[in-house]
Amino acid sequence: MDLDIPTRFDERDWAREVDGGPVRFAVVGLGWFGPDVAIPAIADSDYCETTVCISGDKEKAERVAAEKDAEYGLTYDEYADGEAVDAYDAVYIVTPNALHLPHVETAAEYGKDVLCEKPLEATAERAKQIVEICEEAGVDLMTAYRMQTTRSVRWARELVRSGVIGEPQQVKGEFSFNMLYGGGDPDQWRLDPDLAGGGSLMDVGVYPLNAARFVLDADPEAVHASITEDPPEFDGVDKHASFTMEFPGGVQAQCSSSYGVYGTNTFEIIGTEGRIRFDPIFNVDDDRRITIERDHGETVVEAQEPPEMVEEFDYFATCLLTDREIGPDGEHGHFDVRVTEAIQESAETGERVEL
Amino acid sequence: MDLDIPTRFDERDWAREVDGGPVRFAVVGLGWFGPDVAIPAIADSDYCETTVCISGDKEKAERVAAEKDAEYGLTYDEYADGEAVDAYDAVYIVTPNALHLPHVETAAEYGKDVLCEKPLEATAERAKQIVEICEEAGVDLMTAYRMQTTRSVRWARELVRSGVIGEPQQVKGEFSFNMLYGGGDPDQWRLDPDLAGGGSLMDVGVYPLNAARFVLDADPEAVHASITEDPPEFDGVDKHASFTMEFPGGVQAQCSSSYGVYGTNTFEIIGTEGRIRFDPIFNVDDDRRITIERDHGETVVEAQEPPEMVEEFDYFATCLLTDREIGPDGEHGHFDVRVTEAIQESAETGERVEL
Repeated sequence: MDLDIPTRFDERDWAREVDGGPVRFAVVGLGWFGPDVAIPAIADSDYCETTVCISGDKEKAERVAAEKDAEYGLTYDEYADGEAVDAYDAVYIVTPNALHLPHVETAAEYGKDVLCEKPLEATAERAKQIVEICEEAGVDLMTAYRMQTTRSVRWARELVRSGVIGEPQQVKGEFSFNMLYGGGDPDQWRLDPDLAGGGSLMDVGVYPLNAARFVLDADPEAVHASITEDPPEFDGVDKHASFTMEFPGGVQAQCSSSYGVYGTNTFEIIGTEGRIRFDPIFNVDDDRRITIERDHGETVVEAQEPPEMVEEFDYFATCLLTDREIGPDGEHGHFDVRVTEAIQESAETGERVEL
Repeated sequence: MDLDIPTRFDERDWAREVDGGPVRFAVVGLGWFGPDVAIPAIADSDYCETTVCISGDKEKAERVAAEKDAEYGLTYDEYADGEAVDAYDAVYIVTPNALHLPHVETAAEYGKDVLCEKPLEATAERAKQIVEICEEAGVDLMTAYRMQTTRSVRWARELVRSGVIGEPQQVKGEFSFNMLYGGGDPDQWRLDPDLAGGGSLMDVGVYPLNAARFVLDADPEAVHASITEDPPEFDGVDKHASFTMEFPGGVQAQCSSSYGVYGTNTFEIIGTEGRIRFDPIFNVDDDRRITIERDHGETVVEAQEPPEMVEEFDYFATCLLTDREIGPDGEHGHFDVRVTEAIQESAETGERVEL
């Protein structure tokens, strides 16, 4: 039996009439994601443009700026010193996790709003500092959870809210890939505990973690977890992390991440009367396949939706330009880092950790 | 890309030349599973037959015996007293969990081999007694894990062993259904902690638990878990159980069970170079759909295989008639009950429990 559940990928449920703009971005961090994914998305957006490209390497900053039609290519030091500060309204921070804080400090100092990649920082203490600094400076702060502006994920959340699967009771999620299989670099920052704050958990594990919070519209109260390290590559960072989050009302979420298995990313919400399963879900602009089951019937949806990074940037810009409240704000992102630290503590001590 | 992985559901990899037989069974417990599933499977098997039907209710025992062409319908008391003891060679025990022990004691007393449903008993202490009693009496004992004689599951284990997905690293499994949705009986023995030893965990959670052990060919070293009760229906028994098992070498298995969600049962083995997913898997003679991924290719197999209960009975009979070692023996089943108690203890204390 095919279920009669209309899809809704053709509108921005968060849209508002926008005056002014565009929001001019300084993109801080020019690894692959910034130039290859974020800057093209900004170019395709309605309300954003890239005016400044910032890197540790002056030559690279200028080269990327030229390639992307941005006005300035700056070093981190020049950015900190306030060069070209009138050329941008907001910053998008996409550096290694433990470098988010100083770049946010600079943005706040110059009164620039901040869109900061997940996880918000490498430790909860530093994430909290980011939140406080932005509050004190009166700048807006969003944690860049692109799943929260992905239309198919927002649609699934609406289905859950409207009771299509009854009361949600259990969540499953995983996001994994084999980082070193096929020649991945063992010296990258994602394997450095000081820069990353952890291994697969901090990089990809936060996706199912945050998606569970988003879809359930609730925060976990406690976690317990297992972490596998595997020196020398995975020394001080996890190779695999399996964690269970306990939500209010006895709802349980089991999630995992790995840097050491075949690439797989799935997400599932199981309710009293049905289930919704994404396979895959978490890679950028994945061809999401969504299976909805209830009443012994099944509907499979191949999601046709616009690029989610475009959605994310326009969402952020809309919030800035219309004073809309930001969903995944700084405190929301800070909470996730608290959860990851609780997961690490639980794995180390063998005890359930309350949040 | 379609993967070139030949299926193998057309043979019993455990088969041996069998002399003698058939093994004549006394079926102990005449709830729905015995008469509706097990006795027909015995009838369809090569090496087994049902000669005695045993229930608490004499009239029911005689009625089922007549319907199934068995020679005797006995009460539990008559069975304990040794009535018709020459009419059967082995017993199949399919009563509430906490009644397995006395029925095994009777079988051992009369020198009958035992095929006992999972979980072996309601507590590890009683499961251990079953193992010891059978050892002392010199009778064979098998725990009735039908997954271990299901051809598609055995085939998947062979794929894992042969390295098709590289080294297995993570396992996921769930077996759930909504017991009370649509009018299930809240007074059934499966919701009585004394008779069942637990809720969904003892009834259906042991499937992914045992399947993980079987496919990995290893035993967990520690567990941590969350259990949700929901009185009055789920009082002293779990409604949901989510548990993580830590296997040697850093391998992690995340499994769950529920009596309070839409029916779902899946099982997945994730390796360094691929993954194998069953959806569904655990219901009797499910139409198993198996997805194998590796090298960015995918093969989907709709398993065509003979009834697994027939396989199970013939496997057990072959072991008895040829002195083949039993895979899921009593100690194997006892270990699972130890794991379930560790899961319950972990959920209660909030601590990882070592096995």
